[in-house]
Amino acid sequence: MNFPSKLVENAINELAKLPGIGRKTATRLALHLLKQAPDTVELFGNTLVKMRNEVKYCKKCENISDHDICNICNNPNRDQTLICVVESPRDVLAIENTGHFTGVYHVLGGVISPVEGIGPETLTIKGLVDRVYLDKVKELVMALSPTIEGDTTIYYISKKLKTADVTVTTISRGVSFGSDLEYTDDLTLARSIVNRQPYENYMSNK
Amino acid sequence: MNFPSKLVENAINELAKLPGIGRKTATRLALHLLKQAPDTVELFGNTLVKMRNEVKYCKKCENISDHDICNICNNPNRDQTLICVVESPRDVLAIENTGHFTGVYHVLGGVISPVEGIGPETLTIKGLVDRVYLDKVKELVMALSPTIEGDTTIYYISKKLKTADVTVTTISRGVSFGSDLEYTDDLTLARSIVNRQPYENYMSNK
Repeated sequence: MNFPSKLVENAINELAKLPGIGRKTATRLALHLLKQAPDTVELFGNTLVKMRNEVKYCKKCENISDHDICNICNNPNRDQTLICVVESPRDVLAIENTGHFTGVYHVLGGVISPVEGIGPETLTIKGLVDRVYLDKVKELVMALSPTIEGDTTIYYISKKLKTADVTVTTISRGVSFGSDLEYTDDLTLARSIVNRQPYENYMSNK
Repeated sequence: MNFPSKLVENAINELAKLPGIGRKTATRLALHLLKQAPDTVELFGNTLVKMRNEVKYCKKCENISDHDICNICNNPNRDQTLICVVESPRDVLAIENTGHFTGVYHVLGGVISPVEGIGPETLTIKGLVDRVYLDKVKELVMALSPTIEGDTTIYYISKKLKTADVTVTTISRGVSFGSDLEYTDDLTLARSIVNRQPYENYMSNK
């Protein structure tokens, strides 16, 4: 596309760098911003820059936070000996929204992936291991992607914690509520039969 | 959603104001920006603000431009007596990409819509009328949305040009190339039969 203005073209190029935003959507967004008041666009840009420059990460769980220690880690009602290990702050949000987890979190920042050059040292695994020993953590719930990288990460962490008195569990995999057995993939269906649950558990979780 | 950081929440709120971006996508975009280098995010924000503050509009056709008169209006090879009237700069892009229009454009900035409070005076209709008289324009090609608002706008403009020696035409409506007759709406199909074309035209356009 041959855009008549370099300024607009630059803006479209920047917007098109966002994940899931193609050039057509980027053009639509740029023309939308052009129609807004200059103050509105200034606020928009500044809010994003401010977020990036001033955001902090909780020193315990590495989740995004406005304070040195986040509200979840600071909450005396949360069980500090039960840690749910996740990849990103988004996963914390998702699990918090269920309202069914009473422990605290640890955000790894990804999973071990040699292909993408992500080794254990780029993740927050060392901090997690230190926490387990320091806080006498009883259980680590691994809530990572069900991929080779996720499995590798679980294996690596459990190895590091061999001498610690901690139980490593993973979230259960199975058929989602509302999904058809017919359309569930074989692996999930197989696991859901092998790891079948007593009916009482099913009722108490509903 | 109860986001652990006010900074991130503000950024998500700003991103969610963009058209077609819901809160889930906004969260994904905000967390993506958080992972980028501070310089990258600064460039992103500043490019958008700069675009809004410094963009110019062509004094003739009202299209986005880096100069007072845009490249299309300034091009001596373009027929200044043939004007294609469109709603937005995006439409100019779309028609330019076809490479089949040799005239110039006029960007209205929308269509007359009393419901949305858009009257003729908020659009660039006056400038268009002045151009028609000044440049002795021979033909106005109306390329507006096929809606009541679009039709009203065409009617309004043609009324304003009653005393001018100009032909008002509209782009042709018909069955798109590649679309099935079966799935074409009745109105389009009916028009395509009423306004059928000599076979020679069809061949020369291909």
